[in-house]
Amino acid sequence: MIESEWSIIESINKRINLTGLSLPDDLIAGSGDDCAVFKVSDSRFGLFTTDISIESTHFTINTTSPENIGFKAMMGNISDIASMGGFPRFAFISIGIPGYLNSDYIHSIYKGMIEAANISGAVIAGGDTSSSEILVLNICLYGETDTDPLMRNSARSGETICVTGTTGDSKAGLEILLSSNQYENKDFSNLIKKHQRPVSRLDIIPAIIKKFSPTSMIDVSDGLLSDLRHICTASRKGFSLCKEKIPLSDELVEYCKKNASDPFLYALESGEEYEIIFTTAVSPDKIKKNFSNILPVTSIGKITDNNYVLSENGKESLVQIKGFDHFKKK
Amino acid sequence: MIESEWSIIESINKRINLTGLSLPDDLIAGSGDDCAVFKVSDSRFGLFTTDISIESTHFTINTTSPENIGFKAMMGNISDIASMGGFPRFAFISIGIPGYLNSDYIHSIYKGMIEAANISGAVIAGGDTSSSEILVLNICLYGETDTDPLMRNSARSGETICVTGTTGDSKAGLEILLSSNQYENKDFSNLIKKHQRPVSRLDIIPAIIKKFSPTSMIDVSDGLLSDLRHICTASRKGFSLCKEKIPLSDELVEYCKKNASDPFLYALESGEEYEIIFTTAVSPDKIKKNFSNILPVTSIGKITDNNYVLSENGKESLVQIKGFDHFKKK
Repeated sequence: MIESEWSIIESINKRINLTGLSLPDDLIAGSGDDCAVFKVSDSRFGLFTTDISIESTHFTINTTSPENIGFKAMMGNISDIASMGGFPRFAFISIGIPGYLNSDYIHSIYKGMIEAANISGAVIAGGDTSSSEILVLNICLYGETDTDPLMRNSARSGETICVTGTTGDSKAGLEILLSSNQYENKDFSNLIKKHQRPVSRLDIIPAIIKKFSPTSMIDVSDGLLSDLRHICTASRKGFSLCKEKIPLSDELVEYCKKNASDPFLYALESGEEYEIIFTTAVSPDKIKKNFSNILPVTSIGKITDNNYVLSENGKESLVQIKGFDHFKKK
Repeated sequence: MIESEWSIIESINKRINLTGLSLPDDLIAGSGDDCAVFKVSDSRFGLFTTDISIESTHFTINTTSPENIGFKAMMGNISDIASMGGFPRFAFISIGIPGYLNSDYIHSIYKGMIEAANISGAVIAGGDTSSSEILVLNICLYGETDTDPLMRNSARSGETICVTGTTGDSKAGLEILLSSNQYENKDFSNLIKKHQRPVSRLDIIPAIIKKFSPTSMIDVSDGLLSDLRHICTASRKGFSLCKEKIPLSDELVEYCKKNASDPFLYALESGEEYEIIFTTAVSPDKIKKNFSNILPVTSIGKITDNNYVLSENGKESLVQIKGFDHFKKK
């Protein structure tokens, strides 16, 4: 039995570093960011990301449609490429198919993957097909960028922390789906959609790069707090986050009102949102001035020398962050 | 339940072609060869391959050591890159880990993968780790070549068909391992080794390219007959294969003598050999003259306009080829 996801990843990386060949000069980043980065030429970078989706671990076939399994799996990879400032190009799909699924079901998974790929400009360029005892889907996505890749490790103290759109909806959407409350289903269609069909922010990242020259960037896949910590760990910095500045959707506020729960807890912890967190030297005032429906970017705090601080109406407290751990899920 | 591996792959590819975005010009080959090929620049090509290994389908943890699971999974991908004339560069590993395996076991899988990667010059540059109900290992390998990639679709009538080394040993090795005959275990260590630790022909492919200017190339992963058919299907050609010319190892001949079986059946059908089949305009005489322990290349037949023909001492017969099908395994 594996103790924790992070401990096994850390020890495997140690083994790779100790016993594998030394990394070539053109591999700028290996494990540890959203993508591996290699320098194709002076102004061209190749980006690689891979994600595995496994039945019972990442989804159950009773609660997720095959189209959504495919869509989310592809979009997760697309979001990784997007959050480095890249555009997705070629996807490679490995699928393990159990005997209890028929070819219509498999086609629906591909329908979802192709829909997500088409939105992003990626094409499916190869793969591997096998039988399996459970449904397994692995996507490896190659992308490129002609500007410097936006890494996690280059946030600087004093910089503004920004987030796109709103976060929290995906977690609420999942709750509604699991609760089978039909009334809420109808009322909170956007929350449900955000859980079932999150879309990467490829639509606005080029504008963000142009307007705000981000120094670091990450997509919200684990949760706002957890992913912001990834930036701070890699950059050896801290953060000070202003809770009341975190943008919330109207539906999330409404949902939390009904359930007497704190919408900010959803916004801070909800994963698979595929919104973008970035840091920038641009001041909060200028960020605010640029906010629009087309460019929904909100400043929510600043990078500090150390510590993870959350403030609420001027009252500061240190935060403990629990990242999602597959091996501690159950 | 899926009818057959080839039918589901064909129908999925049809869907991708019909509903996906059109392929960009720089993607020279997608599905259908050992690797997808994209043109990086005029004299530089990127190669992608991916292979999934799933417990109970590709291996069982009772009969295969974790080192060998990792080694074979990595070597299968390396062989795909090698058989396009490329050199492997970056590997991306996804692993799904069941609760009944501990971290030592997982480290042993990585030990095997790193060993195979080190032989070939590849580095592990990223991946994804998850829990799972069964052990799942997916490797996506990126490689490059600065010469034209050796595709399957360019064999021409009259050309010589060549194979490297000997084939058949892997199938015999597996039989010995499953039979638990200790006497044979000791006597046939090379057969067992070829099954457990097949090595790609990266060692001699550069020399083959230089000496024989191959027109098409494939690695023996499904079996000599089946993989030769892949070349012929893609090139819209036939073959005439001379059975007695197919090279056999001494141990295979000895093993088949003991078991009163036909060694050529092993040589024609054994998969995961990672020897190379290629076609060339060079004549059989010149191939023979170049044969050495360092460059073990044997001509075994020629490409024809159509039909798959096997000759034995001058007597010709048409052959039926059954490719390996994961969905019909049991």
